[in-house]
Amino acid sequence: MTRQEIFENIRRKRSFLCVGLDTDVRKLPEHLLEESDPVFSFNKAIVDATAPFCIAYKPNLAFYESLGTKGWEVFLRTVRYIRQNYPDQFIIADAKRGDIGNTSALYARSFFDEADVDAVTVNPYMGEDSVTPFLGYEGKWVIVLALTSNKGSHDFQLMADAQGERLFEKVLRRSQGWADEERMMYVVGATQGQAFEGIRKIVSRHFLLVPGIGAQGGSLEEVCRYGMNSECGLIVNSSRAIIYADHSERFAEVAAEKAREVQQQMNEQLARYGL
Amino acid sequence: MTRQEIFENIRRKRSFLCVGLDTDVRKLPEHLLEESDPVFSFNKAIVDATAPFCIAYKPNLAFYESLGTKGWEVFLRTVRYIRQNYPDQFIIADAKRGDIGNTSALYARSFFDEADVDAVTVNPYMGEDSVTPFLGYEGKWVIVLALTSNKGSHDFQLMADAQGERLFEKVLRRSQGWADEERMMYVVGATQGQAFEGIRKIVSRHFLLVPGIGAQGGSLEEVCRYGMNSECGLIVNSSRAIIYADHSERFAEVAAEKAREVQQQMNEQLARYGL
Repeated sequence: MTRQEIFENIRRKRSFLCVGLDTDVRKLPEHLLEESDPVFSFNKAIVDATAPFCIAYKPNLAFYESLGTKGWEVFLRTVRYIRQNYPDQFIIADAKRGDIGNTSALYARSFFDEADVDAVTVNPYMGEDSVTPFLGYEGKWVIVLALTSNKGSHDFQLMADAQGERLFEKVLRRSQGWADEERMMYVVGATQGQAFEGIRKIVSRHFLLVPGIGAQGGSLEEVCRYGMNSECGLIVNSSRAIIYADHSERFAEVAAEKAREVQQQMNEQLARYGL
Repeated sequence: MTRQEIFENIRRKRSFLCVGLDTDVRKLPEHLLEESDPVFSFNKAIVDATAPFCIAYKPNLAFYESLGTKGWEVFLRTVRYIRQNYPDQFIIADAKRGDIGNTSALYARSFFDEADVDAVTVNPYMGEDSVTPFLGYEGKWVIVLALTSNKGSHDFQLMADAQGERLFEKVLRRSQGWADEERMMYVVGATQGQAFEGIRKIVSRHFLLVPGIGAQGGSLEEVCRYGMNSECGLIVNSSRAIIYADHSERFAEVAAEKAREVQQQMNEQLARYGL
């Protein structure tokens, strides 16, 4: 999917919501546990219910790996289901991978060739040759961690050099030499508020993947005020606040309501900024 | 396994070699492809041949994930085989994981509860709360990436703050507040040479996991000169130079010869430093 296509989906659906499929088998509604593949059943119901209100899905691999040998299969099945039934959805494998070149190349093959997702999140700590193997796939995206939403983001990402440039800024600046805004996005946590303003001075045209609204407490309005650009430039993720909003047989219906609420807020923000 | 037990294994076997089980299905000797589980057959043969000469095994998860749905099963089977037949071997899952707290906790559960490895490699970019969930397992280890062996390690890990402290040094220093040398090790690439001297000023007692000898070109002698401490403090990994030394039916025999050569060099180094 191209950057232009993502923006068109956002305009058409009046939403830049990504629903995080962080499906924890211990948190499933009880009635699903009788199904042959409860995690897939949950994902399918959530996707069917929320697809009108979002433009992307983001399964986090930790939740699938925790299922053991069945995990990769459930992940693939979920990706395939979205791909076949909602071809306009952008699918992000939230895997935060990164290793020496020949090893990153294998991760890239797993996610892009076998799973056929649109994007993978990548950790930049090991530098250029750990990220570039993910860039060799036509039409696929790399989403580099820049300034994450968690408390620990302050430990190293805010470290500044003698000129005052911080680590996450160095990541943003240097990685632009590896690929442009048609192939690369960045993770910036919604909890980082005004930091978006400085970030937009470095990466004005890139899409930012923004986790941290909902359960983690970030503000959508603030993210938009400081982070939105003329092509929206934001994909805002919510996981727990949508998919675990209800634990009864009505879980999918309630998830749809929650997704719709966020979509309406996003519609207002898009309108406010003339998009 | 405790730090003391690792050191005792090193003294007894006169080796601090870790064999990297980076088993690429495309590089297997042809005659193995007829087996029902070629990757496991390869691993089993390599482990049986090299176990006398090493004290640790390190499967890299990228290679297992690239096998698709069977990958996690082959990984588990390999870990179980080592555990049952060579209980004195230290097993490292080279996964380089790291995510927000609740998600890292799931990765930790997969690797420590389900796979029952001794250690997991973790990427520190996201800070304390991405690493500490791995520390809640009695007798298990976290191996934090500090200064890696690849070229890209220079991109961000060498960034210095206004006081001259570099990112990898900050990682070494700050992470000591999260756990001590009985629970935590660090990855330092063999290609980093004299950097070991400075690193030993910050983490004098910790074990360092050292990739990068063999195919990547690091020098064992230099690593020992600058990195060895009074309890050895080094676990040096070699993958490709051992497991792919030969592609014929003699592959395991040749791997054993290569491992034995490294073990003999290690014996000399241990003797040189009075261990």
